[in-house]
Amino acid sequence: MLIIGEKINGTLKKTASAITSRNRGFIMDLANRQVRAGAAYLDVNAGTGGGKEAEDLVWLVKTVQDAVDVPLCLDSADPAVIGAAIGHVKHTPMINSISGEQARLDGILPLAAGKDSPVIALLLDDAGIPADVEKRLTIAIKILRQTREAGIPDRHVYIDPLALAVSTRQDGALIALDTIRALKEECPEIKFCIGLSNVSFGLPARTLVNQAFIAQAIREGLDAAIMNPMEQGLVNMIYGTELVLGRDRFCRHYTQAFRSEIIDPNPVVRS
Amino acid sequence: MLIIGEKINGTLKKTASAITSRNRGFIMDLANRQVRAGAAYLDVNAGTGGGKEAEDLVWLVKTVQDAVDVPLCLDSADPAVIGAAIGHVKHTPMINSISGEQARLDGILPLAAGKDSPVIALLLDDAGIPADVEKRLTIAIKILRQTREAGIPDRHVYIDPLALAVSTRQDGALIALDTIRALKEECPEIKFCIGLSNVSFGLPARTLVNQAFIAQAIREGLDAAIMNPMEQGLVNMIYGTELVLGRDRFCRHYTQAFRSEIIDPNPVVRS
Repeated sequence: MLIIGEKINGTLKKTASAITSRNRGFIMDLANRQVRAGAAYLDVNAGTGGGKEAEDLVWLVKTVQDAVDVPLCLDSADPAVIGAAIGHVKHTPMINSISGEQARLDGILPLAAGKDSPVIALLLDDAGIPADVEKRLTIAIKILRQTREAGIPDRHVYIDPLALAVSTRQDGALIALDTIRALKEECPEIKFCIGLSNVSFGLPARTLVNQAFIAQAIREGLDAAIMNPMEQGLVNMIYGTELVLGRDRFCRHYTQAFRSEIIDPNPVVRS
Repeated sequence: MLIIGEKINGTLKKTASAITSRNRGFIMDLANRQVRAGAAYLDVNAGTGGGKEAEDLVWLVKTVQDAVDVPLCLDSADPAVIGAAIGHVKHTPMINSISGEQARLDGILPLAAGKDSPVIALLLDDAGIPADVEKRLTIAIKILRQTREAGIPDRHVYIDPLALAVSTRQDGALIALDTIRALKEECPEIKFCIGLSNVSFGLPARTLVNQAFIAQAIREGLDAAIMNPMEQGLVNMIYGTELVLGRDRFCRHYTQAFRSEIIDPNPVVRS
């Protein structure tokens, strides 16, 4: 499973301040630590609300690439911002995100088309996030019709089924799990990516809820997660789950991750 | 889910020595710590190999009951040992265990019959542990035919599907999960209990494998686990999993367990 590091995000206070003040050291350190902890991609989001998101994202992309050599996940709701940054990436990026909102599809699909860039697709539309599985499937089908028309193969579409906070909706996680299962049956080629942090919103010891959720999502066939790779218990759970589900031949990934200290039985959040 | 504390077991070196030397303090402390950590039952096993298992188990039962007020899980392969101890328990005990081995069924079923004592049933028989789900189901059906004949209702039968070490069999955990699923469909009234520790045998950071496994087993409908309640990460995972599966109304169990420090986000094994 791909770990996409979530920490370089302008909606987080410290990162926002580092972006605004052009603090290269802070960003580069955050990039390095995430990659060392196991991130295969780094999400970059310059949404500080400061009014110059495109310029900020270009700076972020350059700064992160000066620190680490992993592909990026360009994260913005604004197609113009993605468009400004996409020319500066060294490796084929993921695009985060499209959704069932028509303006976003119209703005972003042309940027992804013909470029081999995977796109993350959120199962919401102009009416918001549907409560039930069936309406989410309808949005997914709408999105896939348009990604296919744009020439993006299903295997490059990462559906985020949207886990809602279980503190406000008892079935907030279950609906996401059921959505993965149902969609996988209908479109076996598509992939799944989940933004983890939301599921545990409002609860104490959030990492425990995140861990329990990712274990179930991996069972359903999750391919990627946007998460904090320094959340040690979460990384542990990814390797442990692949192992008990019989997906780790000769326990090789698990034991290698243990030897290289990617997993650690004493999962304090590293920061 | 019921936590059955596994630590008072004569096959563990320190416990064996405490049993042999009649060290009441050691046993009472082990009982207290397990109950404080969340155990609803305590397993008691006097199988030290010292040749007086029945006498030892009676001493264990009395000693543990002097320390804590929870029901016991009488653990022996020898019907005579269970028979000797069963008259000394204060609360209706679980009996651990029967299996498809005919001698064990013949010896233990009469002790459980008419006493409301739940029995744990291992899915092995005189030929050993079957590798596949189908043969395990056959053993389960054989056991259930005899428990029913003995007047033990299905709801008092806790099937242990037997998780094999994933270090030696890649599908060792998966087969146990599939066995639960298949049996639950066939006999919805029966319960499931698993001896956890075996699944992680031979691997580093065993608790991570145990945690990943229990998360999946709970999804399948596990009712009880014989485990170390001081293995903090495992207790965390039980509460987290019930929560994300939508089984914890208003997050009440989870938040209460957090407040009473039954769960702890910093899951060091307590000892």
